[in-house]
Amino acid sequence: MSEHSSLARAPATEPAGHPVLEPLGRVSRLHGAADVASRLSALRDWLAADLTDLERDLADVGAGGRDLAWRAARHLLAAPGKRVRPLCVMLAARLGGRPFDGAVRAVAVACELVHSATLLHDDVIDLGDARRGAPTARVVYGNAASVLGGDHLLVDALQRVRTTGAAPLLASLLDVIGAMVAGEALQLARRGRFEPDRDAYLEVVQGKTAVLFRWALEAGATLGGLPASSVVALGEVGDALGMAFQLVDDVIDLEGDAGKTTCADLREGKLTWPLVLAAERAPTLAARMRAFAAADGDVPPAEARALVDAVRATGALDDTRAEASRYGARARRRLATLPEGAPRAALEAVVDAALARRT
Amino acid sequence: MSEHSSLARAPATEPAGHPVLEPLGRVSRLHGAADVASRLSALRDWLAADLTDLERDLADVGAGGRDLAWRAARHLLAAPGKRVRPLCVMLAARLGGRPFDGAVRAVAVACELVHSATLLHDDVIDLGDARRGAPTARVVYGNAASVLGGDHLLVDALQRVRTTGAAPLLASLLDVIGAMVAGEALQLARRGRFEPDRDAYLEVVQGKTAVLFRWALEAGATLGGLPASSVVALGEVGDALGMAFQLVDDVIDLEGDAGKTTCADLREGKLTWPLVLAAERAPTLAARMRAFAAADGDVPPAEARALVDAVRATGALDDTRAEASRYGARARRRLATLPEGAPRAALEAVVDAALARRT
Repeated sequence: MSEHSSLARAPATEPAGHPVLEPLGRVSRLHGAADVASRLSALRDWLAADLTDLERDLADVGAGGRDLAWRAARHLLAAPGKRVRPLCVMLAARLGGRPFDGAVRAVAVACELVHSATLLHDDVIDLGDARRGAPTARVVYGNAASVLGGDHLLVDALQRVRTTGAAPLLASLLDVIGAMVAGEALQLARRGRFEPDRDAYLEVVQGKTAVLFRWALEAGATLGGLPASSVVALGEVGDALGMAFQLVDDVIDLEGDAGKTTCADLREGKLTWPLVLAAERAPTLAARMRAFAAADGDVPPAEARALVDAVRATGALDDTRAEASRYGARARRRLATLPEGAPRAALEAVVDAALARRT
Repeated sequence: MSEHSSLARAPATEPAGHPVLEPLGRVSRLHGAADVASRLSALRDWLAADLTDLERDLADVGAGGRDLAWRAARHLLAAPGKRVRPLCVMLAARLGGRPFDGAVRAVAVACELVHSATLLHDDVIDLGDARRGAPTARVVYGNAASVLGGDHLLVDALQRVRTTGAAPLLASLLDVIGAMVAGEALQLARRGRFEPDRDAYLEVVQGKTAVLFRWALEAGATLGGLPASSVVALGEVGDALGMAFQLVDDVIDLEGDAGKTTCADLREGKLTWPLVLAAERAPTLAARMRAFAAADGDVPPAEARALVDAVRATGALDDTRAEASRYGARARRRLATLPEGAPRAALEAVVDAALARRT
């Protein structure tokens, strides 16, 4: 309670300087979410040591492996990421009073590695050229190294969770990875044709994003020794946060800010929520999207911009942010059932920052 | 002892009809290894029920998964494989008196799935077009589905081992997969340049073949409740059998029988033992191999045949089979330290069949 109060009183300075919170804080500040920026600044001080430990562990991943696949994997890990999944593990454990000790850190790092493994494989599947403001690992080291680099990270993540001795966590992480692969495969099967199908979208996003957020919070809560009802509640927070995160990602793809390849999803024929909404509202747009998807990325940029403008004119981008906010509100309602204090306030800030981000 | 005797007395009929032993038996018979064929025939009857169970389990893998990645994975699993790794698990367990029950079957299937996962990823890396006499999964379902199909199989394999409750086996399988990925990555790094380096060859083959054979026999022995010294001995059998298996594979690539893409290794710039030997013996050949490797597969078939003839003229193919036989002999010496009986005789037959095979 006192920790929570001190957070609320924290000065609204810029939360710059830390690789984890800095990006979230910066985008919040830039886009007028001053309150979020202020709370993130306070968090930064509170979590500084934990976040430094996290980055050190991530920098050490694969340190003994000099092969091309490890170099591909380390290339991705070295790029500045938001580290939001490990942050979820850390905060859920702290909610149960457990510090960022060896086991919690192992699980937090494992989350980031599983996420990174899917990015390495995705970039090969989507032929992605840029990520986090840098060339993708597959561009630098080749597709094969990127595939094997992803394999390395999956194995490394599972080994870390195994060393914690928490057998149920290892079992559930295997299930999570299986669900993520199924989500990617489902997305793959729909590639090249555009069908505005809400259920298909939700099924893909469950696999590719929500299950890992859910697991991060459940695993952290379990390690933190929270009661079963709190583990369930945090799992629901993770599910809603993951959905919100993906919906905002969908919008960012069409807003085309720096650091992301503009309209990559659109050009790859991926089903995103704003495209589903726009197609429902303007059937002629659906036909144009199908033509885009069938062209398999081979679309003039001006034509892509024109289609994005038409999508925006339907209100689909604003409404997708609104949908993300509804998931965010659901996450906050579940958080409200948990004990007050700095960890809960931090998770609330993570939810708000995820919604406010523009990159 | 009596089982062993009955095996020795078995009639020398053709061991046809079973998907596991039939291929090993056929190649042995075709190539004059009548004794091996005879012993395999006897084994077939003894192991018939186990092998049927194995094939049924393999046919059920991913039965619930209809996505494109599972279809790619099942495409490979449905092709006739030698199933020699699951056979190793089964026989090592039987050596300890344990039947092919649920846990042993789970580990046996896991071995085949890990092997299959690496094939799915390898075919994407090597752009392989044919395997087991059929188009590769990546040709039928695409590279992306093949990558994700491999991911599915790795997860499935680990889940199966986890369900046995044998935590040390799950841990060691993770290590094995990590070593396999490292072996593939090492091979990848050397691609496009040909350097006849014996140490590099041995390191790659340890990872890509020997560690999984070793694990199969150690895991089976552990499940069979064999004493630690026998587990160690069987691990050494696996190591030697894996090396022998790979050396014979290397020769088969250059012999170009049906079912394999002739000279695929040579064209991909892969370091194989006969190529190392030939390059050591004829430095002008090393230069031609480097040119091949640099051409990245773009070599006229007639030129490839001419190089293979030159390699054969150095005696490298015969000497590689001889080297495989030395590993086979080492495997048999280790087997000789284990209790006599049908399981040991069966493992001896597997070693001999691996050496005798021509496809």
